[in-house]
Amino acid sequence: MKYLMKLRYVGTDFCGSQIQPNVRTVQGVLNQAFTAVFGTVCRVTSCSRTDSGVHANAATLTVELPDGSVPIPAEKLPLAVSPHLPPDVMVFDACLRDDTFHVRHDVVGKEYVYLIHNACLRDPFMRDRAWFYPRRIDDAGLAAMRAAAAHLVGKHDFAAFMAQGSPVATTERTVRYLRVERAGDLLRFSACADGFLYNMVRIIVGTLTEVAAGRIAPDEIPGILASRDRARAGMTAPPEGLYLNAVFYE
Amino acid sequence: MKYLMKLRYVGTDFCGSQIQPNVRTVQGVLNQAFTAVFGTVCRVTSCSRTDSGVHANAATLTVELPDGSVPIPAEKLPLAVSPHLPPDVMVFDACLRDDTFHVRHDVVGKEYVYLIHNACLRDPFMRDRAWFYPRRIDDAGLAAMRAAAAHLVGKHDFAAFMAQGSPVATTERTVRYLRVERAGDLLRFSACADGFLYNMVRIIVGTLTEVAAGRIAPDEIPGILASRDRARAGMTAPPEGLYLNAVFYE
Repeated sequence: MKYLMKLRYVGTDFCGSQIQPNVRTVQGVLNQAFTAVFGTVCRVTSCSRTDSGVHANAATLTVELPDGSVPIPAEKLPLAVSPHLPPDVMVFDACLRDDTFHVRHDVVGKEYVYLIHNACLRDPFMRDRAWFYPRRIDDAGLAAMRAAAAHLVGKHDFAAFMAQGSPVATTERTVRYLRVERAGDLLRFSACADGFLYNMVRIIVGTLTEVAAGRIAPDEIPGILASRDRARAGMTAPPEGLYLNAVFYE
Repeated sequence: MKYLMKLRYVGTDFCGSQIQPNVRTVQGVLNQAFTAVFGTVCRVTSCSRTDSGVHANAATLTVELPDGSVPIPAEKLPLAVSPHLPPDVMVFDACLRDDTFHVRHDVVGKEYVYLIHNACLRDPFMRDRAWFYPRRIDDAGLAAMRAAAAHLVGKHDFAAFMAQGSPVATTERTVRYLRVERAGDLLRFSACADGFLYNMVRIIVGTLTEVAAGRIAPDEIPGILASRDRARAGMTAPPEGLYLNAVFYE
């Protein structure tokens, strides 16, 4: 048996989610916390990797019930592990799954959210939580971004929207929705797909800001997709605006 | 002439707002920033002092136009000072006032907001931004807090709701409203008064949580006010949930 849990973290003070020697990682602090709870070496498995500065509202992870350890009821595990976690990480909504379940292979979809703070002045409360983008995006810019986003929805080869040199079997993905909403000074992008290529959301958001700025026309998006050429898409938006928001299973 | 401006800051990494030697204060970084902008020593005057960890959404400050310096148009001052400010402080909405105006003496009212994060688990995104209060406040508790809050609205002697040893001419204040709202896991208190005693909002919020917990009955509030006895009111809520939200002038 294994425990499946949701995971929330502020990515600012982590060198990404995946464990690496000599730096602070989300996986590193989780391994330590579960090892302390179960009294035996534990290693967590995560649904995905995120880069330094990227956040998670509800990522997922599993940890195997260690051999011979006293099982903790799943609903009590988040409170049990909480005192062993640093204040920028939280585990919640635990349940038990059998050994055939895999937290990464069994994912059928994910949702990412990206926040842009579109204002003249940096808001201290938005620091490290949104991309500060001072160039005004007006209603016409918003409409252009939505028109461009519509071309990205559906099944496409997203090679042009992937960081170069990323090894993957296929660059085809199906985007279920790609929404752009404005709430005050915040622009909120929500992207749901069966899977995402490396930096795909950040390149999409960067490209959409170039659409808003008039440097790329919405109608150029199909040609950019067809080119499979990273150089034709827009810039990569910075990590601090990106949140892994939900992970879906069957 | 002097510039009147609004001020926003995350209080977490400051030893309060008022300048003190050898520690990082809001006033200290503002003095440095305006001195850099005007090229001559500037000292700001603030609407009030806040403690370590307390935040401001829209405090106010003034800075005198230095003798002989080139005047900067008020609407350009926030952008001019922005590069000289650290990322946890922002100045906005500047205008000019004549020398008879005083940013502290002329205040006719202030609004504070206090946030409680009422959940079982600490949310990393609420860290240092709300009081983590795990004991569940249900609808009955909320109703009791509102009944107690109603007794605090109006003109009263708030000596029982002031940190002991605070030197003030009078402990009488007029509370215009004291609202308690719930939004998901957040409880939001909004308090508006002609002025506040030292720690008054934090003692009111601490007292209201004791009302929610059933340790103080709403009907005891008038007696606590009449006693003028700090020991009869509730605990002082911690600083991280408190925001100076607005400052009013004629």
